[in-house]
Amino acid sequence: MGRIIGIDAGGTKTQALVMDEQRNVLFESVAGHGNPSVSFQQAMDHLTLVLKECLHDGEADAIVIGMAGLQSGPLEERVKDVLAPLSPSPMWIISDAELAFDSAIGDDDGILTIAGTGSISHGRHGTMTGVSGGWGHLLGDEGSAYSIAIQACQIITTEIDRDVPLSPLSQAVMKEIGAVDGKGLKGFIYTSDKGEIASLSKIVDACAQDGDASSRMILQKAGASLGMQTVELARNLSLSSLKVAIKGSVLEASNAVQTSFKQVVSEAYPDATILLSPMSPALGAVTTLTRMRRKH
Amino acid sequence: MGRIIGIDAGGTKTQALVMDEQRNVLFESVAGHGNPSVSFQQAMDHLTLVLKECLHDGEADAIVIGMAGLQSGPLEERVKDVLAPLSPSPMWIISDAELAFDSAIGDDDGILTIAGTGSISHGRHGTMTGVSGGWGHLLGDEGSAYSIAIQACQIITTEIDRDVPLSPLSQAVMKEIGAVDGKGLKGFIYTSDKGEIASLSKIVDACAQDGDASSRMILQKAGASLGMQTVELARNLSLSSLKVAIKGSVLEASNAVQTSFKQVVSEAYPDATILLSPMSPALGAVTTLTRMRRKH
Repeated sequence: MGRIIGIDAGGTKTQALVMDEQRNVLFESVAGHGNPSVSFQQAMDHLTLVLKECLHDGEADAIVIGMAGLQSGPLEERVKDVLAPLSPSPMWIISDAELAFDSAIGDDDGILTIAGTGSISHGRHGTMTGVSGGWGHLLGDEGSAYSIAIQACQIITTEIDRDVPLSPLSQAVMKEIGAVDGKGLKGFIYTSDKGEIASLSKIVDACAQDGDASSRMILQKAGASLGMQTVELARNLSLSSLKVAIKGSVLEASNAVQTSFKQVVSEAYPDATILLSPMSPALGAVTTLTRMRRKH
Repeated sequence: MGRIIGIDAGGTKTQALVMDEQRNVLFESVAGHGNPSVSFQQAMDHLTLVLKECLHDGEADAIVIGMAGLQSGPLEERVKDVLAPLSPSPMWIISDAELAFDSAIGDDDGILTIAGTGSISHGRHGTMTGVSGGWGHLLGDEGSAYSIAIQACQIITTEIDRDVPLSPLSQAVMKEIGAVDGKGLKGFIYTSDKGEIASLSKIVDACAQDGDASSRMILQKAGASLGMQTVELARNLSLSSLKVAIKGSVLEASNAVQTSFKQVVSEAYPDATILLSPMSPALGAVTTLTRMRRKH
């Protein structure tokens, strides 16, 4: 194989890389979100755009797409119906978490835990793979920026219901969203998208750094649940030693979350290696492809 | 005053009653939801329809509208802009919870606690009024059918993540939604509306009646948080004796929720009177109007 196209179709942006089998990047194209369960048409438009740009200088040997939001319905087939006509090359569609795993952990056994707007853990042990979390904002996504933000807002609702003065964290959140009362808070929550709400987690992190106790508690709980999710998956996969990669704005940028994550993982797996993964998920395509070719 | 129009503009249906000052119902009209934050245009269509029907035989002396979803933005003015041209009569717009309070408690002091798809408590002590809860499905609504349903679904996600067999409650929920795995569960949650999700609370109630421990625990917790919300509001309003009316599918139909609600309220207020309110909220219009006229 020579030219490989790897596409990370995420909830915020779509990044496509053309690379050789040593992961040298030959070309890059970026567009808006590629999550078909947010908007199928928009996702297909963005994917068509980056794919056409990548194919401009010649065909690829294979195309690997890691896609968010594949959980609901027979979306994979519908995506293939749109994209396959663009190129005769074999096309593989996997979850965005699996592609990110292939980028961060490569062919090794281990677990990738992502906590950005949402959260999920993806793991592998030999030919066995597994997932933990990733249930989305209504059912779970504990430890995610969205979940951290909602917990901060719930402190405000409790204070309003109890008729007590707003705490420093609550005041900071209300200032950020430009609200002065419960009506304003509700207005923000029910007219904003998930990403806008999730961005309030930065306020929680700033307040924790200023020494606010309840902010720190929210972040410690977030790190602990991400840690437990990781350990649970490691046990399900019967991993005896553990290599963990972490990714996403929350786990990468919040010191409090990262510290308590590492603590929970290290208690269960004292020899665990925990590494930040600065690599682009799209780079995982080379590993994915090698694995797929071994299987088929 | 002679002819009064009371309209309960709820999240599911809009009920309008023409009545005399003794609350004798002279005419009734029903249409779809009247919640302007669900769909402004639909809500206005439904309200216009019932209002025109009520005005068909003659003008009313006053119109009182209790409306869900008024929390976000300057909706009240926009609603008046649409509806006021239909009649020269004075028009009052209040929250649906306040109208239901006026129907259930009348001119007395007390608290109305509603737990249907969502949940809220509305209270009054003399000229003081207060609200507790009612934060909607993303921020709160503890004890509501929606919250009960989500907790049942979160038991399923925990069991799947832990790789253990599904409990009886989880099996019943999965059967009800026609899902066989986590993918199916996510598909249901992220493609259904709040009401469809909330209706799963009936499965939790059925399982609790069959002796399922975790179902019973979810319902007891729901009743307890509704009870605490009620007690908290009573304290905020400095009520020394307590008259509580309960309303909504969860508090009316679930024995387990009602029992634990009564227990929490009675512990804090041993002399509390707790009554079911079978009255239509729209009937509250007569009380609302008398109060409004006293104030102005």
